[in-house]
Amino acid sequence: MTDSWANPAPDPPATSGADLLLELTGPGLRAGLTEALRKAVRTGRLAPGTRLPSSRSLAADLGVARNTVANSYAELIAEGWLTARQGSGTRVARRAAPRRVAPAAPGTGSTPSRPTYGLVPGSPNLAEFPRTQWLAAARRALTAAPHDAFGYGDAPGRAELRVALADYLPRARGVYASPDRVVICSGFHHGLTLIARVLRARRVRAVAVESYGFGVYRDALTGAGLRTPPLYVDEQGARTDDLARLPGVGAVLVTPAHQYPTGVALGPDRRLAAVDWARATGGLILEDDYDGEFRYDRQPVGALQGLDPERVVYFGTASKSLAPGLRLAWMVLPEELVPEVVAAKGQVDWASGLEQLTLAEFISSGAYDRHLRAMRLRYRRRRDQLVAALAQRAPGVRVTGLAAGLQVVVELPRGTERSVVAAAARQGLEVTGMAQFRYEVADSGWRLPEQDALVVNYAAPPESAWAGALDALCRVMP
Amino acid sequence: MTDSWANPAPDPPATSGADLLLELTGPGLRAGLTEALRKAVRTGRLAPGTRLPSSRSLAADLGVARNTVANSYAELIAEGWLTARQGSGTRVARRAAPRRVAPAAPGTGSTPSRPTYGLVPGSPNLAEFPRTQWLAAARRALTAAPHDAFGYGDAPGRAELRVALADYLPRARGVYASPDRVVICSGFHHGLTLIARVLRARRVRAVAVESYGFGVYRDALTGAGLRTPPLYVDEQGARTDDLARLPGVGAVLVTPAHQYPTGVALGPDRRLAAVDWARATGGLILEDDYDGEFRYDRQPVGALQGLDPERVVYFGTASKSLAPGLRLAWMVLPEELVPEVVAAKGQVDWASGLEQLTLAEFISSGAYDRHLRAMRLRYRRRRDQLVAALAQRAPGVRVTGLAAGLQVVVELPRGTERSVVAAAARQGLEVTGMAQFRYEVADSGWRLPEQDALVVNYAAPPESAWAGALDALCRVMP
Repeated sequence: MTDSWANPAPDPPATSGADLLLELTGPGLRAGLTEALRKAVRTGRLAPGTRLPSSRSLAADLGVARNTVANSYAELIAEGWLTARQGSGTRVARRAAPRRVAPAAPGTGSTPSRPTYGLVPGSPNLAEFPRTQWLAAARRALTAAPHDAFGYGDAPGRAELRVALADYLPRARGVYASPDRVVICSGFHHGLTLIARVLRARRVRAVAVESYGFGVYRDALTGAGLRTPPLYVDEQGARTDDLARLPGVGAVLVTPAHQYPTGVALGPDRRLAAVDWARATGGLILEDDYDGEFRYDRQPVGALQGLDPERVVYFGTASKSLAPGLRLAWMVLPEELVPEVVAAKGQVDWASGLEQLTLAEFISSGAYDRHLRAMRLRYRRRRDQLVAALAQRAPGVRVTGLAAGLQVVVELPRGTERSVVAAAARQGLEVTGMAQFRYEVADSGWRLPEQDALVVNYAAPPESAWAGALDALCRVMP
Repeated sequence: MTDSWANPAPDPPATSGADLLLELTGPGLRAGLTEALRKAVRTGRLAPGTRLPSSRSLAADLGVARNTVANSYAELIAEGWLTARQGSGTRVARRAAPRRVAPAAPGTGSTPSRPTYGLVPGSPNLAEFPRTQWLAAARRALTAAPHDAFGYGDAPGRAELRVALADYLPRARGVYASPDRVVICSGFHHGLTLIARVLRARRVRAVAVESYGFGVYRDALTGAGLRTPPLYVDEQGARTDDLARLPGVGAVLVTPAHQYPTGVALGPDRRLAAVDWARATGGLILEDDYDGEFRYDRQPVGALQGLDPERVVYFGTASKSLAPGLRLAWMVLPEELVPEVVAAKGQVDWASGLEQLTLAEFISSGAYDRHLRAMRLRYRRRRDQLVAALAQRAPGVRVTGLAAGLQVVVELPRGTERSVVAAAARQGLEVTGMAQFRYEVADSGWRLPEQDALVVNYAAPPESAWAGALDALCRVMP
C-alpha cells in the first residue's frame, strides 16, 4: 500500500451529510451517529479515502450540536475508522484490501429432523431438575456468600463445597475424603483431562481402559499423548487381573459401581486385583463413579477408592445426580497428587463460585439427599415398567445391567442390532446400539464378543414422552 | 503375595463383636455398621486376614437384626473390603502392602500474614457485586429455562447468552457480532488457551505479545507450544508496525482499549498497522478487551475488532464488569475460525447453563448497563480521590494511564520501586511494582526502559478500606 496521504490525489468534494444517509439509531444521539458511521464504513458505503463533511456542516445537515459530531469523529479517529490530517480534513481510513475469507466448514451441528422420542444414554431426566429447591439454595448461598466468592477462586475450588463433599461422600459412597483432597472440576471430562496431563508429566505412557466405554474419554487420554490399551469386560466387570500383563500402563480408568454401559458391577476379586496392581507398581486407579448414587435393589455399592485412597483418583459428578448443565464434578485425590492437579488446572478456579456455593448449600441442607431419594424411586419405577413391558411384548429379549444407574442393556438376537436401530429411527425413536461403545483396537488382533444389544436410557424422557417411547421401543423389538 | 486362602494358616478364633469396638454412627443402623467396619479395616484396627464373627453372633452382640449384619457383610464383600470363602467364614481381605506415600509438596497456597490493605491489580470491587439484581435475574432465568438448559450444552455456549451479547457488544463496544460468531468460555484464560490450540493446529509458531503484560497469559501461549516474541509498548501502545519484522508470527495479542498495565490506548495508526499486517499476512489479532467498559473522561474507545471482524478475535469478560467468580467470558470470532474453536473446546459446553441464562437475562433486562453506569461513577470518584491525594501529599510522583480501567500507573523516581513495594508491605499495604509486568526476553539483547512505577488498583478495596489504603499509599511515596 502506498501512502496516498503524503501526496494526495486531486480531491473530490467532501461527501455531504445527506449523502451519508445516516440513520441515527440506538440510545443517545452521539452513540447513534458513531455507530451509523462505523456501519457505513464497514459496509463500504463510505469507501476508504472518502472525505467526510466538516463537523460544522454535518451538524447543520443533521440538526445536531456541532460538538456531537466533533466528538463522534474524535472517537472514530481514536478507533482507527477515520483519519484526520492537517489541511486534508477527516477521511475514511485506508486499509489493505481485506483477505478473502474461506467459507466456514459445514456441519457445526445441524440436526435435520429431530426424533420424536429419545432413549440415548448419558443424561438424567432434565425435566425433574429441582428448580424451586435449587433457587432457594442459590438465594441462601448468595445472601451468605463472602465477598471473595465473587473473586478469582483458588484452583481446588470453593472450600464450602469441598467441605460439604468431604462430609457427603464418605457417608453416601464409602469414599475416604477430606476437604484438602477434593478438587472441583467442570465435569468429568475436565477432571480426566487434568489427570491425563499430570500422568503425562509423570512420564506415564499408557492408561488402560475398559473394552466397553465412551469414546470421548478415550479421546481425552489419547489427546494428552497417552496410549489406551483395553481391558476386557466380562460379567464381573473389567479384568483388572490382566493389568500386570499390559506393558507401560501407569493407570487404569474403570467404572466400578456400574460399568458403562454394560451395567455390571466390578467384582470383589477384581477390585482387590486392581488395588494390588496399583500398590505393586505405583499405578493409579481412575474411578469414574458417574451414577453411583442410583442403585435400586440394595444399598449402593461403595466406591473402590475407600480400599486405598492413596492409589485411587475418585471422580464424582452432579451430571447424573442433578444435571449436566451445572458443569460441576469433583475429584478426591491421593494426597501426593493434589499439588500436581492444582498446577495442571492452571492455578485458577474454572467453575462459578456462586454455583459452587449453591451446590454446597444444596448438599448440606439435605436437599441433595432428598432429591436423590425421590429420583431413585422414579427411576426404579421406570426401570420396572421397561422390564415388564419388554417381558410381555418382546419375551425373546433379555434385559441386563439393571441393578443400578439410568440405563439397561437390551440384548438382541445375533445380527439384528443395526436393523433394530435403523427401524427405530424410521419410527422417530432414537436408540443407541452397543456397537457404539465397543472398543476394538486395530493392531491388537483382539476381538470382542459381538453381543447385539441396545443401551436404553429409561431415565431421560420427560413424563409426557415416556409411555410413547416405551411403546415405540417394544414395537421395534425383533 | 502368596495366596494364603488356598492353604490357610492355623486359625485364631473369630473376633467377637465387643472386640470390634464398633461405634455405630450415621443415619441408619446398617449404613452405620457398614461405615464402622470400613473404618476399622482402613485404620488397621481389623488387620487383613482377621476372621469376623458370624453375622448371627455379631447381631446378638450388637442387639440388631441378623439381616442387618448379613447385608452389611454382603455390601463390604461386594466392595472388596471383606472376603467370604466356603468353610473359612468372613474375613478382612488381604491386599498387597500399601506403598509409602511421599508427603505432599509444600506451598499449596500458604499465606502467612494477610496484608491489611491491597491495591494489587486484577480485580474489580467484589463488595459491589449486585447480589439482589443477580438473584432476581437468576429467578427469572430459572423459571423460564427450557429443560435442555440443564443438559450437556453445545460447545459454543447457550444461544440466549450469545444473542444477548450480539446485541450488547455492537452497541457498547463497536464490535461486529452475530450470535453464531460468539463462543462462551470460562474466563479469558480459557478462551486464550483454545485459540492457542487452534493456532498451533494451524502450524502457527509464534504469537507476538506486548512488552508489558500478565505473565500467566504468555505462559498459556508457550504452554501450547507457541513462541511469544515481544512488541515494544510506548505511549501509543504496542508497536504493531514492527509486526512485519517479526519472523514466523501468526498472531498478536493486544489490549487496545487500555494497555495492561500501562493504561495507554492503542493509537489509530497502530490499529491500522495491525489490521494491515493481519490482512497482508493472514495473521490474527487477539484483542483482549478486559476492561473496555470503563472509560471516564469520554465515551469508551470502541473495539479494534470492528475494523476487520475476519482478522480479529475479540475477547470480552464479565471478570471486570461484574465479577471474576462468575468465570464467564466470550469470544467473537472470525467466521472461518468458529468450527476450529468449537472443536478445540471439545464439543461440550464448559460453563453452567443456568449461569449463562442468568447473565443473558441480566444483560437483556438492562441491569448490566445500569450496573456499569453505577460502577463507572464510583470508580471515577475513586480515581479522582487517588489523583488528588497524591497531588497533595506526594507532588513528586506522576500518575498516568488514568483515562480508563481499574488501575493507574504511579511513576516513581528512578531506583525506588523495590524499596517502595517493600516499605508498603511492612505497613500492611500490598502493592505491585511495574517490574512484575515487564517482559524481558533473555536471548533478544532487548531491554525495556526501566521506569520505576507502581500499578495501583483503586477499584478493588471495599469502601471501608479505601481511605486507609489511600492513606497508606501516600505515606510510602518517596
